[in-house]
Amino acid sequence: MIEAGFPASSESEFETVSRICAENLDANICGLARSIHADVDRCIECGVDMVHVFIPTSEVQRVHTIKKSQQEVLDITRGIVAYARERCDQVMFSAMDATRTRMDALVDVYCAAVEAGATVINVPDTVGVITPSSMKALVGEIAAGVDCTIDVHCHNDFGLAVANTIAAVEAGASQVQVTVNGLGERAGNADLAETVMALESIYGIDTGIATPRLVETSRKVARYSGISISPTQPVVGENAFSHESGIHSHGVIANTSTFEPGIMTPEMVGHRRRLKLGKHAGRHAIHQMLEDVNIHPTPTQLDEIVQKVKHISGRGKKVTDSDLYEIADTTMGVNGREKAIKLDDIAIITGNHVIPTASVRAHVFGDERILSSTGNGPVDAAMNALLGMARIPVQLKEFNVAAISGGTDALGHVTIAVEDEQGRIFDASSSSDDIVLASVEAMINALNLVCRIRENHTEK
Amino acid sequence: MIEAGFPASSESEFETVSRICAENLDANICGLARSIHADVDRCIECGVDMVHVFIPTSEVQRVHTIKKSQQEVLDITRGIVAYARERCDQVMFSAMDATRTRMDALVDVYCAAVEAGATVINVPDTVGVITPSSMKALVGEIAAGVDCTIDVHCHNDFGLAVANTIAAVEAGASQVQVTVNGLGERAGNADLAETVMALESIYGIDTGIATPRLVETSRKVARYSGISISPTQPVVGENAFSHESGIHSHGVIANTSTFEPGIMTPEMVGHRRRLKLGKHAGRHAIHQMLEDVNIHPTPTQLDEIVQKVKHISGRGKKVTDSDLYEIADTTMGVNGREKAIKLDDIAIITGNHVIPTASVRAHVFGDERILSSTGNGPVDAAMNALLGMARIPVQLKEFNVAAISGGTDALGHVTIAVEDEQGRIFDASSSSDDIVLASVEAMINALNLVCRIRENHTEK
Repeated sequence: MIEAGFPASSESEFETVSRICAENLDANICGLARSIHADVDRCIECGVDMVHVFIPTSEVQRVHTIKKSQQEVLDITRGIVAYARERCDQVMFSAMDATRTRMDALVDVYCAAVEAGATVINVPDTVGVITPSSMKALVGEIAAGVDCTIDVHCHNDFGLAVANTIAAVEAGASQVQVTVNGLGERAGNADLAETVMALESIYGIDTGIATPRLVETSRKVARYSGISISPTQPVVGENAFSHESGIHSHGVIANTSTFEPGIMTPEMVGHRRRLKLGKHAGRHAIHQMLEDVNIHPTPTQLDEIVQKVKHISGRGKKVTDSDLYEIADTTMGVNGREKAIKLDDIAIITGNHVIPTASVRAHVFGDERILSSTGNGPVDAAMNALLGMARIPVQLKEFNVAAISGGTDALGHVTIAVEDEQGRIFDASSSSDDIVLASVEAMINALNLVCRIRENHTEK
Repeated sequence: MIEAGFPASSESEFETVSRICAENLDANICGLARSIHADVDRCIECGVDMVHVFIPTSEVQRVHTIKKSQQEVLDITRGIVAYARERCDQVMFSAMDATRTRMDALVDVYCAAVEAGATVINVPDTVGVITPSSMKALVGEIAAGVDCTIDVHCHNDFGLAVANTIAAVEAGASQVQVTVNGLGERAGNADLAETVMALESIYGIDTGIATPRLVETSRKVARYSGISISPTQPVVGENAFSHESGIHSHGVIANTSTFEPGIMTPEMVGHRRRLKLGKHAGRHAIHQMLEDVNIHPTPTQLDEIVQKVKHISGRGKKVTDSDLYEIADTTMGVNGREKAIKLDDIAIITGNHVIPTASVRAHVFGDERILSSTGNGPVDAAMNALLGMARIPVQLKEFNVAAISGGTDALGHVTIAVEDEQGRIFDASSSSDDIVLASVEAMINALNLVCRIRENHTEK
């Protein structure tokens, strides 16, 4: 079931819902309607499979928004559900703010809706104030008093939306409302990925969702909505399967189930596992990361590398993959190794009447090269110039600027990923108070990383 | 209680914990230690009030990480807890991966720890796989079998960390482990702000936390850690008390409790309430936003403004405050009003051997002005040039770049807030595939907003 929108809210929303209905997706499409005939009519005109009507039932909402008595709410409910059901086979009825509505009033309104033909009754926690224990009791009581499919709609004001949703399932709800990335009013709604994975992996319920596409879907929605997710977002966040602590990484290298849920793997959700460097990084993780790129320190050298990594990250500085390889080189006495690409000069100009342009001079394998490129903006122009100058067969796969908050002189953190012709992905990052130069440094780091890995593999 | 770190993990961590202990904060300081004497000694050397020792107890972790039998784990537990307790008045013992440990083995190891002198036993959900119902049952059983203060440590792999934490409190836990912004391994741990507010507002428990500083603390930690939070993050996220839907905004204008938890207000957590424009924005919210700046459309004009806002946002474009005022001007036939500041030209240059410099030419109240400024980076230089050129008594208070993910040509979204000499805050934003020009546009929008509000107030 996809609730595609609220057709009566605007002309463009009406068009959107109509177009989604016309796509003939392998899903039922639902439209939202206030308890007025015109709203239901608009849903029907869109061609929805289900009409979702709602009315406030809590005292605070009844008195301050619709200004109706409890009896009036009952009468309106009967009327609108019957009206919708005459026009549509599936009708869902929501008692808005159900979790702040008196139990007897709630059961009365649901019974009225079911008698009038509702096929699903929805229990919305509109302001996100219920707890899992209370939700379980509430849905249990409703299930005992009303004979109908029960659905829940949970808000996340206290961070409990997913837990309340699964508590409702434990108590008998068989339909739940979720949104991609938990997008919704205020702190949002129950997150699709978290809810689906909890139901699938913990409860063994088949939700019918193609879980390997969860990460891709989340990223797409973040991009289209302009609302970013945190790196620590469960299931789909960048760090969801990353391990920094030495104890955790050591365990995961031996057996991934030691420090991961096990019942949920990165592959199940379209993610990947990563070992990360930080102040709690351990010997085993660092050894593994170096082995992966054919760097083989002696045990004594490894100890020294680990100490250096801990020292740098203990001072609050992030240690990237390319930093680690440089530390290894220095420790192992191979720091005579020249970097493939040395940036001499770069200058970038942009403006409202200027074509963003970057000019670069660098030494690539000892040869001086000069190039200039344009782009959509100064960062794009700089990336184009660097890639054109390096002439290494790589493609830019990801470019991320972490959210910058504070002043215009705050540090910007840029992470990029490039893919070589064998499909291997290399990450690099850089921080600077100049966001354009941070991007340039990250790209130079990535290009040098690709060069040195190719070199190492050739040496073997 | 503040668990300040893991002193044995590195020299810099040792120094950090020692310095936190020396601060004489109004809190007990705890240090983490593996079950080895040297780790406990390092904690004691730091001067901690509590030593927290841990050992894996689940079969998967026993076999694959420490390679010990259940009997060996029991013996080690007795030894290390006794050793720590001889050196420190408070000792916490964690059975790592408790939620995947057999119940009998778990009670045995906790009883051994308590007999050896543990003052707190901790139940860690190390890989985040438990549900609130199971956590409640588990802590209840442990409480029945072991006479000791119970603490929990929940991970957020399925988004259930906060719910599991409060379920443990329901079952008798009297200490809980939380982190600011939920930072921790993988998807992190139970979030401080969500847990504290759920306990305070829903359960009526006094946690002793100064809740009006939650938002400030979250922002500080986001900035220091470089790990951003999502706008929809509960309690502290930018949107936690924002209302876009017409139905929600209408209710909140009448009575804030209608579409907010009520038991948690923005003031309680140091946040602010905002009405936002979007495709579901309603007449009441738009009317209120215009009234706030002394714009008084007729009912017919208001309808037209509402339709235009819905139309623009239905096409996926964000409508900012300054866009709204411009729409109102056009609709009300006062579009002859000149903008205070018209940007003619701006050019910005940066590079590795270039001092970031911006040159601007603009008309301010009809006068042409030209100015150039330097800065820490191209954005900083541009902001300095624009503020210097405008000569309006405002200060830049906030500058945010939303996380950009995708290619180097992805849209960057910049939001800024400026404060005028009366302490009023004005937001403006802009999006562009050129992050520097997006910042420029946002600042020009903000400056024009300040000018027109000053003008409107003067007219009245």
